[in-house]
Amino acid sequence: MGILTMIGIFGANGFIGRHLVARLAAGPERVRAVSRHFDPVFAATLPPEVEVVQADLADDIAMASALADLRVVVQLVSTSSPGLQNRYAVSDIRDNVLPQVSFLEACVAAKVERYVFLSSGGTVYGQPQTLPIPETHPARPLSSHGMTKLVVEQYVDMYGRLHGLPYVVLRVANPFGPGQTFRKGQGLIPALLQRHAQGLPVRIINGGEAIRDFLYIDDLTDAVAASIASPAAAMRTINVGSGEGRRIMDVIEAVEAVLGQRFAREDGGRRDSDVDANVLDITLARDLLGWSPRTSFLEGLRRTLRG
Amino acid sequence: MGILTMIGIFGANGFIGRHLVARLAAGPERVRAVSRHFDPVFAATLPPEVEVVQADLADDIAMASALADLRVVVQLVSTSSPGLQNRYAVSDIRDNVLPQVSFLEACVAAKVERYVFLSSGGTVYGQPQTLPIPETHPARPLSSHGMTKLVVEQYVDMYGRLHGLPYVVLRVANPFGPGQTFRKGQGLIPALLQRHAQGLPVRIINGGEAIRDFLYIDDLTDAVAASIASPAAAMRTINVGSGEGRRIMDVIEAVEAVLGQRFAREDGGRRDSDVDANVLDITLARDLLGWSPRTSFLEGLRRTLRG
Repeated sequence: MGILTMIGIFGANGFIGRHLVARLAAGPERVRAVSRHFDPVFAATLPPEVEVVQADLADDIAMASALADLRVVVQLVSTSSPGLQNRYAVSDIRDNVLPQVSFLEACVAAKVERYVFLSSGGTVYGQPQTLPIPETHPARPLSSHGMTKLVVEQYVDMYGRLHGLPYVVLRVANPFGPGQTFRKGQGLIPALLQRHAQGLPVRIINGGEAIRDFLYIDDLTDAVAASIASPAAAMRTINVGSGEGRRIMDVIEAVEAVLGQRFAREDGGRRDSDVDANVLDITLARDLLGWSPRTSFLEGLRRTLRG
Repeated sequence: MGILTMIGIFGANGFIGRHLVARLAAGPERVRAVSRHFDPVFAATLPPEVEVVQADLADDIAMASALADLRVVVQLVSTSSPGLQNRYAVSDIRDNVLPQVSFLEACVAAKVERYVFLSSGGTVYGQPQTLPIPETHPARPLSSHGMTKLVVEQYVDMYGRLHGLPYVVLRVANPFGPGQTFRKGQGLIPALLQRHAQGLPVRIINGGEAIRDFLYIDDLTDAVAASIASPAAAMRTINVGSGEGRRIMDVIEAVEAVLGQRFAREDGGRRDSDVDANVLDITLARDLLGWSPRTSFLEGLRRTLRG
């Protein structure tokens, strides 16, 4: 009676994508994993019922084909990065915003019934006027990464209203968990581990005083799953974070405590595109998604460092 | 004793550009008129003290050269248009947003001291929740044109804050006046005159019931001049309109009355990207620019139709 929901995960090979594929493949829905490239070990260990499609977001024809029969799209693809700061604003528009908008048009044509876009709660707001930050806070990014996320959000909203593409924008805090690698300057914990493994001191940016909102990956994939299922979430932009702020230096010390080791440190100077503090108000996520983070920071850290 | 301010007008060959060049060339500042192409008659009738530079916004090298010695930049270039609706969202990003952001980087490098960006008060807000619309109203465009204007505004704001580029964003209502031609679907009055001259009936979109804010061109160029000179305008986004709403049908009848002729009409159907009403709240412009519109609609219409 009726077909099962087919969920397409675009950007399936990344840190969030891999966890999300595992999470959703364990449920009743059919899952299609789409990525520009796949790590061979990851691809080989996928359950056989997961469809694997290798296709680039910038390839309109491949995307139209990758969208066939999908009722739900989760869009995780992101080519820009907070770590690259603002050196590549123009190419971020060309390589990220342009294919995302083209893809939105393809989703409208494919009559997708739910479009979940993962945005960046850590960068779209810019310098916060209040903490925790509600979704109604002005969005004035201070980085090209945050700006491209905001711009794509706005196109998602416009296409959603003009063409009846029911979307959910999730503004995600700093996710962490097993399998996160240090790529494109993202991920504090893998960055620490990588520097330490290389025998290099850990670079302390802005004195380690910045405050961030760290969300354990299983809580994030729970929120994505809820945003696919919840009728109340349609056409909404929703913060997804732990709701708690932590000093970067406290996180470094917590990692040291769990590992039972101490990292050498060096002063990494200042980075202007970094805001002093970012903690997301997650009231709306609780109300609309019936979701709450369930993993304590320390428990998440233990699971991350165990792997 | 000190050099005179050199003002660069980018997009000088358009309707607003031509009036602005004339307005500023009559003052003490030196004016450089920059455009991708120049109408030969317009170029030939420019005062000899106006520098003319033919250069495309998409040509980074030509732009760096066009920016030499400029202290003030007025950016009028716009390749998208409300009339084209949403058929070209992707190319609007590529052809409009990309070169605008690249140009901003060049303006930072050239240490421009005032960057005046003309945005679209008629399209960035989308469907208004209140009338007249203040600058604090949410910006949720319903057209690719409005979206590209909003996106460029946001990059202007980010570059302004990150790199100390003092900007003024002017969200301009529907300008009208002598010399406006019907290009890219813009300009109600030239559209009426063109249809009538071709012996074609005037197309009435959305029953002619839409309400718009019409600003006479001399009032607009006054506002641009004030935004160059006013210290209080730095880093601000300011509505520039008449502050009064007029039904499209009333405007058509006013044109008929001034001309002493009656246009044939036909139903032009509905256009979804059109909002029902758009009237700008110009309190901030009065306060920050010391500016008010001085030309009544009827007087503006008489001057427009006299030429």
